Amino acid sequence: MKVGGAVVEDETQLSQLLKDFSAIEGRKVLVHGGGRKATKVAEALGIESKMVNGRRITDADMLNVVTMVYGGLVNKSLVARLQANGVNALGLTGADMDVIRSHKRPLKDGVDFGFVGDVDSANGSMLSRLIEEGVTPVMAPLTHDGQGNILNTNADTIASETAKALAPYYDVTLIFSFEKKGVLRNPDDENSVIPTITRANFIKYKDDGTISGGMLPKIENALSAIDAGVARVIITLATALDGQSGTVISL
Amino acid sequence: MKVGGAVVEDETQLSQLLKDFSAIEGRKVLVHGGGRKATKVAEALGIESKMVNGRRITDADMLNVVTMVYGGLVNKSLVARLQANGVNALGLTGADMDVIRSHKRPLKDGVDFGFVGDVDSANGSMLSRLIEEGVTPVMAPLTHDGQGNILNTNADTIASETAKALAPYYDVTLIFSFEKKGVLRNPDDENSVIPTITRANFIKYKDDGTISGGMLPKIENALSAIDAGVARVIITLATALDGQSGTVISL
Repeated sequence: MKVGGAVVEDETQLSQLLKDFSAIEGRKVLVHGGGRKATKVAEALGIESKMVNGRRITDADMLNVVTMVYGGLVNKSLVARLQANGVNALGLTGADMDVIRSHKRPLKDGVDFGFVGDVDSANGSMLSRLIEEGVTPVMAPLTHDGQGNILNTNADTIASETAKALAPYYDVTLIFSFEKKGVLRNPDDENSVIPTITRANFIKYKDDGTISGGMLPKIENALSAIDAGVARVIITLATALDGQSGTVISL
Repeated sequence: MKVGGAVVEDETQLSQLLKDFSAIEGRKVLVHGGGRKATKVAEALGIESKMVNGRRITDADMLNVVTMVYGGLVNKSLVARLQANGVNALGLTGADMDVIRSHKRPLKDGVDFGFVGDVDSANGSMLSRLIEEGVTPVMAPLTHDGQGNILNTNADTIASETAKALAPYYDVTLIFSFEKKGVLRNPDDENSVIPTITRANFIKYKDDGTISGGMLPKIENALSAIDAGVARVIITLATALDGQSGTVISL
């Protein structure tokens, strides 16, 4: 399950989410963001946050900030709170136990994203061994290049890559928690949740404009996880993890 | 092995230390500090570092700083660099896998140290299971109270408590790396290292003033680790981990 920065930074939502997540029976993994907090800490340190197309440019100073905020502040706070709920949480970046390797993103359309990692591989075997020990991994959006460098990595990508890496071992449900009830047919109607998306009806929804904008890459990402063996992807409200809500993306 | 903040923050020393640590054969654990970096980050954030008798007062803001610096910046940088050296490092605070529980320190002589944890127990069984999987724990000086709170904890204490907790499983050598060649007979002579300290000769050295000041609690701490089953404690230069140098404290 992936939880975004907006939820992590709202105490009421976070507290409900951790309660619901703790109550999920069976094996689980939490993946978190923290971009808003990183922006705040950077600001307090006098470091400017530069964004291109909604993606953060990670220079050396910003890499230190995200390593502190994602790997330290957000991750350890979630771990301590899950432990208090009886969940045997273990905070991980990709460097820890070498669970996610990446390489520094090459220039893209002339844009240098800096210390940003594109994932090469997630270690499903190592993660499943931890999970079988009763451990719940809590994953920060940081990876490493195997050469000693931490790289900033998109949390949605961490979530999909982890789900794919675990697919050979488990029947994996990948949940993206979110500020809406699901993928909406009508953005003005909170209750117009599309219950099911498959590759076939996604083409239709895309062609007729029902699904557009920032939701397109999210669904494409979800469908590629399905193609890689993830059983289902659910996009749902962070405070409604009952398995009855949200949009289910499957074959 | 415990490595202090001064070494972690000096690139030449750190690089040598990581090389030496990586070359140690057999099972190992690294414990690190990071107080100087925490002081710098706090300063950059406009947070004042208050110390009483050399110990940091940890208010809520400072707890955020040490969680970021110890749990994030310092810990993840060490983990990534050890991975590059072929060591399967895993960064841990006490909250991760519940490896070290503590309680908030009560007022001491009227001083409120804030969010500082006094260790209740380290989980040797969990740590030894990781170690048997080929993992090298890298431990930050942070613990948790089991109620969802991270607490700032002295790194020397983390090192001794971890060594004691592992004593039932292994023949444990606890190394404190340090800026001197060992415990010196004459503080002005860098080469006057006392090769061996036992409880019997420690009393003599204490009585005749050979060992005094800040070295006294360090040695008392080492002797209590020996009493708790640790085979030997070595106090040595960070760049001389050859097992031939330093002061050995044993029964």
